Amino acid sequence: MTYVERRLRLASSLDVPALLVTRPVNVRYLTGLASSNAAVLVRQDGTAALATDSRYIQTARQCPDLEVIEARDVAAALLTPGAAVEGHDMTVDDYRRLGGDMPVLSGQVEELRTVKDETELDALRHACALTDEVFADVAGRIAPGRTEREIARMLEFRMLELGADKPAFDSIVAAGPNGAIPHHAPGDRPVQRGDLITMDFGALYRGYHADMTRTVALGEPAGWQRELYDLVRAAQRAGREAVRAGASAHDIDAAARDLIADAGHAEHFEHGLGHGVGLEIHELPFLGPDRTGRLKDRVPITVEPGVYLPGRGGVRIEDTLVTRADGPELLTLTTKELLVL
Amino acid sequence: MTYVERRLRLASSLDVPALLVTRPVNVRYLTGLASSNAAVLVRQDGTAALATDSRYIQTARQCPDLEVIEARDVAAALLTPGAAVEGHDMTVDDYRRLGGDMPVLSGQVEELRTVKDETELDALRHACALTDEVFADVAGRIAPGRTEREIARMLEFRMLELGADKPAFDSIVAAGPNGAIPHHAPGDRPVQRGDLITMDFGALYRGYHADMTRTVALGEPAGWQRELYDLVRAAQRAGREAVRAGASAHDIDAAARDLIADAGHAEHFEHGLGHGVGLEIHELPFLGPDRTGRLKDRVPITVEPGVYLPGRGGVRIEDTLVTRADGPELLTLTTKELLVL
Repeated sequence: MTYVERRLRLASSLDVPALLVTRPVNVRYLTGLASSNAAVLVRQDGTAALATDSRYIQTARQCPDLEVIEARDVAAALLTPGAAVEGHDMTVDDYRRLGGDMPVLSGQVEELRTVKDETELDALRHACALTDEVFADVAGRIAPGRTEREIARMLEFRMLELGADKPAFDSIVAAGPNGAIPHHAPGDRPVQRGDLITMDFGALYRGYHADMTRTVALGEPAGWQRELYDLVRAAQRAGREAVRAGASAHDIDAAARDLIADAGHAEHFEHGLGHGVGLEIHELPFLGPDRTGRLKDRVPITVEPGVYLPGRGGVRIEDTLVTRADGPELLTLTTKELLVL
Repeated sequence: MTYVERRLRLASSLDVPALLVTRPVNVRYLTGLASSNAAVLVRQDGTAALATDSRYIQTARQCPDLEVIEARDVAAALLTPGAAVEGHDMTVDDYRRLGGDMPVLSGQVEELRTVKDETELDALRHACALTDEVFADVAGRIAPGRTEREIARMLEFRMLELGADKPAFDSIVAAGPNGAIPHHAPGDRPVQRGDLITMDFGALYRGYHADMTRTVALGEPAGWQRELYDLVRAAQRAGREAVRAGASAHDIDAAARDLIADAGHAEHFEHGLGHGVGLEIHELPFLGPDRTGRLKDRVPITVEPGVYLPGRGGVRIEDTLVTRADGPELLTLTTKELLVL
């Protein structure tokens, strides 16, 4: 889909004369311009104007089928009477500075962005393939004495070597008891025999974010570790199998969560089951107990149940998938057998 | 300075009962917690409460001298009657959802953050030293045929190898005519003899951002290239020499800009002269023709004039410095002689 087509889709969903899009990732989606200071006004008739400052103006002038305006205060330069602003992005200060009486829309572009076209899916497939390859290359090099931070660097190096733009997010490497912290920042703890090691990472490719988590065992796992792994693996499979166009965000979450709850670990899985990925690492839709709505076709989404036992450790298994009418297309293909290193 | 001391400094500047801090980098500054979903309420008496969700709660509980609350809607969990919110961070939607009648403060924490303590300066010195070392290692490996993107990867690899947390921002490598685009994204253009190549990059270390730019020549430079380089170099020196505690943001900018304007290139230097660096790559204070205020002591700031000739190329030279009463401390020490590779 071209940028013009994206803007026409947005225009046709508007019930105001125009929408002033200020959220950088939405500006990028609608115009191709990646800038920390840009905005685009999309009018109901599908025409649009893009504003950015001198640092980005030459790049902006290469964006097709747009009027381009150079300005530092990009919102003020574009705002027209009756135009709505993005209420989930614009700050209170900016809103007041611009008059404080504009209509407000929320999440219009994010909603459009959930369904990906083939160019987007190709970029995401490639990002996920890179991520698989990174895991295959690095897993065998994990050995007692390496720190979490060193393992994170190995993952990120290899991503760059293989041609990723950069890591899609700060890699998580959590060993032993740290595995009980879902968003643990890799530290100086050396991994040791008996550890479960959770690695949550992904490659960014042409703006699209892969997201994968695997938990591996260093040395033969104890009974409780294998049991925990098998539980999460079963829950993750159930979650994946529930992913299809038309399925509800709540039901997909429940498919995985119920298994974990039945095993007595309800309180050890406190986060949602998954989230959309695309130009952002976390984007619509979200899967969780209190999430509403149904998945559309061609929506990339993660499925990532985890069980976290404070002071002991944890397991999380995560894939990136894409909804299809007849079930999910799996983009991260790394095995979910428990790897014993 | 401890986190408690930072919060006490903030508390003593408040003329409201409390400030609800929602901007992630400000929450990190005041508590040590780096989270995408956290907020801290700092009361006028200096006490504080921190809220975050289950993913970060265990890390939050290690933050000293704070009440810690687990919540997904962190702002709602903390807001108390009369408390102000951060108007430069809170979105219109969140503001309305929380009642829409709270007092609004802007930039209080950012203003505090401008003056760095010794722990912060040590981290920044180290980030800058890493950046110098990366340049020294990579410059000699630039050769005709390498693409901009490959050179950017070489810079970023070496950063990780040397122990940076990650690149402080997406590296800019702009060769030949691309050098006329101040924020050019590295592409597939192979560098060639006769190119000026601008590299703008920096290492992140313990949360602190180094920022340095050098322009080098591949092969003996043409007369106009050397002339342009000498002009920018003279302007950069004039800017650096104007940096000291007490100097005005406008005057420092003018010290560099006037030289460029006198040479007939006023319209080829359209961005500000520099910006603060710290927990953000761009933070207060900013140096520019229409910037007000004076620099305090111990404020890290960049000085980065550039001249950009559309279709031909450009030169930018940038250092990170710290204000001192008797003049600047230079943190990026790479030579500013024109390197001919």
